Amino acid sequence: MKAIVYHGPHDVRTEEVADPTPRDSDAAVVKVALCGICGSDLHIYDGHGFSKDVGFCVGHEAVGEVVEVGSQVRSYAVGDRVLLPASVGCNSCAPCRRGVVFLCENGRTGCYGVSGSLQGSQAEAVAVPFADANLLRIPHDMSDDAALLLTDNAPTAWIGARRARISPGQSVAVIGLGPVGLFSVMAAQVMGAARVYGIDLVESRRELAASLGAIPVDPADATNTIMSHAGALPDVVLEAVGLDQTITSAINLVRPGGCVSVVGVNQNMDFSFPMLAAQIKNLEFIISLCSVQYELPALMPLVTSGRLDPAMVITHRMELTEGADAYALFASRDHGVTKVVLDPSR
Amino acid sequence: MKAIVYHGPHDVRTEEVADPTPRDSDAAVVKVALCGICGSDLHIYDGHGFSKDVGFCVGHEAVGEVVEVGSQVRSYAVGDRVLLPASVGCNSCAPCRRGVVFLCENGRTGCYGVSGSLQGSQAEAVAVPFADANLLRIPHDMSDDAALLLTDNAPTAWIGARRARISPGQSVAVIGLGPVGLFSVMAAQVMGAARVYGIDLVESRRELAASLGAIPVDPADATNTIMSHAGALPDVVLEAVGLDQTITSAINLVRPGGCVSVVGVNQNMDFSFPMLAAQIKNLEFIISLCSVQYELPALMPLVTSGRLDPAMVITHRMELTEGADAYALFASRDHGVTKVVLDPSR
Amino acid sequence: MKAIVYHGPHDVRTEEVADPTPRDSDAAVVKVALCGICGSDLHIYDGHGFSKDVGFCVGHEAVGEVVEVGSQVRSYAVGDRVLLPASVGCNSCAPCRRGVVFLCENGRTGCYGVSGSLQGSQAEAVAVPFADANLLRIPHDMSDDAALLLTDNAPTAWIGARRARISPGQSVAVIGLGPVGLFSVMAAQVMGAARVYGIDLVESRRELAASLGAIPVDPADATNTIMSHAGALPDVVLEAVGLDQTITSAINLVRPGGCVSVVGVNQNMDFSFPMLAAQIKNLEFIISLCSVQYELPALMPLVTSGRLDPAMVITHRMELTEGADAYALFASRDHGVTKVVLDPSR
Amino acid sequence: MKAIVYHGPHDVRTEEVADPTPRDSDAAVVKVALCGICGSDLHIYDGHGFSKDVGFCVGHEAVGEVVEVGSQVRSYAVGDRVLLPASVGCNSCAPCRRGVVFLCENGRTGCYGVSGSLQGSQAEAVAVPFADANLLRIPHDMSDDAALLLTDNAPTAWIGARRARISPGQSVAVIGLGPVGLFSVMAAQVMGAARVYGIDLVESRRELAASLGAIPVDPADATNTIMSHAGALPDVVLEAVGLDQTITSAINLVRPGGCVSVVGVNQNMDFSFPMLAAQIKNLEFIISLCSVQYELPALMPLVTSGRLDPAMVITHRMELTEGADAYALFASRDHGVTKVVLDPSR
Repeated sequence: MKAIVYHGPHDVRTEEVADPTPRDSDAAVVKVALCGICGSDLHIYDGHGFSKDVGFCVGHEAVGEVVEVGSQVRSYAVGDRVLLPASVGCNSCAPCRRGVVFLCENGRTGCYGVSGSLQGSQAEAVAVPFADANLLRIPHDMSDDAALLLTDNAPTAWIGARRARISPGQSVAVIGLGPVGLFSVMAAQVMGAARVYGIDLVESRRELAASLGAIPVDPADATNTIMSHAGALPDVVLEAVGLDQTITSAINLVRPGGCVSVVGVNQNMDFSFPMLAAQIKNLEFIISLCSVQYELPALMPLVTSGRLDPAMVITHRMELTEGADAYALFASRDHGVTKVVLDPSR
Repeated sequence: MKAIVYHGPHDVRTEEVADPTPRDSDAAVVKVALCGICGSDLHIYDGHGFSKDVGFCVGHEAVGEVVEVGSQVRSYAVGDRVLLPASVGCNSCAPCRRGVVFLCENGRTGCYGVSGSLQGSQAEAVAVPFADANLLRIPHDMSDDAALLLTDNAPTAWIGARRARISPGQSVAVIGLGPVGLFSVMAAQVMGAARVYGIDLVESRRELAASLGAIPVDPADATNTIMSHAGALPDVVLEAVGLDQTITSAINLVRPGGCVSVVGVNQNMDFSFPMLAAQIKNLEFIISLCSVQYELPALMPLVTSGRLDPAMVITHRMELTEGADAYALFASRDHGVTKVVLDPSR
Repeated sequence: MKAIVYHGPHDVRTEEVADPTPRDSDAAVVKVALCGICGSDLHIYDGHGFSKDVGFCVGHEAVGEVVEVGSQVRSYAVGDRVLLPASVGCNSCAPCRRGVVFLCENGRTGCYGVSGSLQGSQAEAVAVPFADANLLRIPHDMSDDAALLLTDNAPTAWIGARRARISPGQSVAVIGLGPVGLFSVMAAQVMGAARVYGIDLVESRRELAASLGAIPVDPADATNTIMSHAGALPDVVLEAVGLDQTITSAINLVRPGGCVSVVGVNQNMDFSFPMLAAQIKNLEFIISLCSVQYELPALMPLVTSGRLDPAMVITHRMELTEGADAYALFASRDHGVTKVVLDPSR
Repeated sequence: MKAIVYHGPHDVRTEEVADPTPRDSDAAVVKVALCGICGSDLHIYDGHGFSKDVGFCVGHEAVGEVVEVGSQVRSYAVGDRVLLPASVGCNSCAPCRRGVVFLCENGRTGCYGVSGSLQGSQAEAVAVPFADANLLRIPHDMSDDAALLLTDNAPTAWIGARRARISPGQSVAVIGLGPVGLFSVMAAQVMGAARVYGIDLVESRRELAASLGAIPVDPADATNTIMSHAGALPDVVLEAVGLDQTITSAINLVRPGGCVSVVGVNQNMDFSFPMLAAQIKNLEFIISLCSVQYELPALMPLVTSGRLDPAMVITHRMELTEGADAYALFASRDHGVTKVVLDPSR
């Protein structure tokens, strides 16, 4: 089959690889109908991945159809239309049961496409370990586009907003308006924010946020703009970039007694944290990695009822064979690109 | 001045009464710019009021301008544009500080226009006891219409939805789609309901709810209609009528483990409560009277930011001199009437 | 084997019955080491049971050792020391997954020993359907006595207190000081109550509550006694009797804005509920039946760490062959009886 | 009068200063009956204070008797027995009303005894600005000792535990067992912790924690000791030291998905925060400075009912004239010193 393979920094190629098979009796194989490129794929693309492996299939966002099931898979059958939560766990160890799937104590798991130990899903097909725990049937009235965004981006934004405990009537600032940031805007609105401020350097992204009802804010003048609207700093800041400077901005921007919730990935083990200022501010600082399975029960009805439209973030559709171009486009942050999805069938 | 005076069941008249004066040094007088007729005014109109008094001014919804202040009023001055929370308290006794304003332990208080002890605000002017605690300045960008609905109807719906602890993604049914029920629909949406069902006998009210995004439901077939949409009974039922039968319907309709929150006024001290069924259902049953002051901090920013549009419930505008006709129209529940407001200046 | 069998009102007999076998491949058989008589067993004993069956084994509180497992049981093996949650469910239908086990949609389940369809556990052995979902391994440092109380009484008290959302520093009154009431006292203390009032007609039970740190209160003078201690009515009332009059007392006793949480079983489908008074009080009224499985994760560490001592409620130990006498003793509410446990091995 | 005056690092002296007078009509003067030395006083003593002033009276923990009131003080009178919350605010600006007293926007306020702008209370008398907001009457059944600990140490521990949202049955580790740490142990217990681990280098402090029911833990082997008790890392870590290394230890020690709540004062504006590890852990990180007034409503009934015994932390009683010796003793962390209180009357 064809798949996108990582060969080193800025070097991904769509090429022929061996077809996946279910390695264990509780695994399954899914034929991919649609897959996406995620912001965290760019960490790998840029050479800052979580392993030193090369030669593995990348990607962790996919929807498709079950084409093979191991003998012990009980809840899914060949022909089921499914989405694959990006986080993969066994659903029986202590961290999994507490909802921290990515700390699963059973070896083969974690996330698709971040190392050679679990092949990614930017491919024609993908093997799913512990299939009963790591698949979810797509309701008949939900599109592949919507389901794809539920595999990672939307629940990542959701956990960040949920853990910030937004209460109705509060004001929320979102820093970074890529797919996760745009969902953060939507999540804050669903949770009752009176005002949502969308902050991004890129004007086209601010406009996208404004189309959702957010107040667009240029980061060069964020504090003044926000003060001019409601006369107060935001109760909650959702950080969806992950750079040191944007996390620092979030801490500076939030009102005293407020909450900064980070969902952008930051790999700095020596981030400069302003303890004294944070204490005077009575800061609540939350950092999340999403266990997708855990967030979907609240998200699914919001999508099927039409309150949330995850597909609105998709700006580009390409073919799987265009993998290298797709990564380059997404990495450019140019051409109005927000979300690129790939169709392996074309 | 002119005011609407209660003379007995179905007998209210707009007539000349003495001008109000601030009885105490901490009171104020407000010239009324707009006042409303509330569903609970109909209890009095129908002869089921909370006192046996006649000859008093009715009404408890009003906005206007401060025209006189007692010597100890500190936060308001002549000329301020204000709304008058329907609940009146001293803000220093234990119940007031805990937010249960209508149980204020200081004598003169309670609610405007329900007995002779505190004259109502369907009048050209009204005296406000403990003015520092019982007025609220209207932001310059908020209309009189919106402010008027914040004096009682909107916060009443809000407390009912808030105490039901709606969580994002839940489904909510609202029984009764008068002004409080329509706000209940809006409140449930702001709190993140995936689906809101609007249940009312009157089709025009269901259509109004549908225009807000609710799913209109005929009470004759509520369970089937709701099951056909989401395959499950509602997590929360907000009851905004107050009849025995609608409260019973709410208990029957909610899913096991769900919550019924009543804001309709029911004066039955012997309501037939199905304890066994409620226990098997693990029912949470909440009954609220609104302390308006306590709910406004969350509501105000939602209105000024435009997320909530309270004025949409207003269907009829009349003059203060048309008091008798206005009550008769509202009591008829006919002619598409949902909310009647009166303008004393005309 | 020997078991206690219900033959009609006030007629239970220990007699020989057929040994249980696992009816399904996912069931197990447990040899009973200790079983208890619960307050709700008295409903059956008094002839007010939930079915018209006679001739079935009664009882739903038991701990013991697994002696047989069906071929599909995965988590338990012969020799495991286990407790049996009184609520029995399949763990896969919607109500089970939401934690409302007793509304399980799969037929054979519900509760042991309330009809002929699921034999009770006041017996030498008992069959456990869906064994993976309806057993729990007893930690090595937990006694049979403690584990037995975790099968029903303690989690029933816990759910009542938990759903009342007691916050640290509040005052809590408990009406009825049988085993569930005594646990309600302990639960309120664990949840941070500043003062717990223990209300019961029987002085010996009040003394037992006092030994736990509760303030003993004679129901004849409850309001005055409570007011004399803290100058305020209780924030929360936990009702652990189930009579109409005690539920009414709970509603009267709670402070405005407070919460009444009922765990006593009341079978009245026409309970006289004071709607008007409840509304003026802004009452929160919660009725619970316990899904034991759902409450144990919080309770288990409290027992193994020694913060909760469930065994303290046991006042009488008898043999299984003394079934008739044991029921008569417990029904008498005399001789200082609070909790009777039976040892089938003696 | 006599007072302890700061003259520079490690140089405090009890000396004669001018008697205080109420500078404003809403201020009062309190004759000090008992005052305490707080851990944060040592920041000043060590020369790391929050201002460069010298020659001011230090101290911010005091109880006593009102001896003079300004003309506009409404709630207190000469002769009242009162405690002085260490945080001083106006109670009318936005931060004060939101409970963040130490960010009060009105100039004269903040905290007693940290600079020359608000004289401290390690003195025979102290002036209290905005007396209505910054005094609290001591209940007749509460000792001066208990009340003194409520001015800072106990509510500081309480806010840290409260914001960590400890739920019943959780395990909690406390790092640092000075007065605030010992209260953190008590707070965690009141909030329902199944196990509380008390971690401190000093054995006598660990023994004090053990006497409260905590499990004493040597920091040299904390992880192993904790794992050996419950087989799991703590759900919550309360940090009550403020050193970089203890905050880092707290982050390392907490279980994935858990919460670290810091109440120790750390003045590092460049604290090395391990973002990547924190994200993989889904960390919640909370830093608090206490607004004492806001925490007392929950704490007062817990003390008057006897559930909390704040006075147990007091190890040394000295005279005001022994100020220099008292500071030296407390700074030594030797001689079993935990809390030193001073009696100005002796």
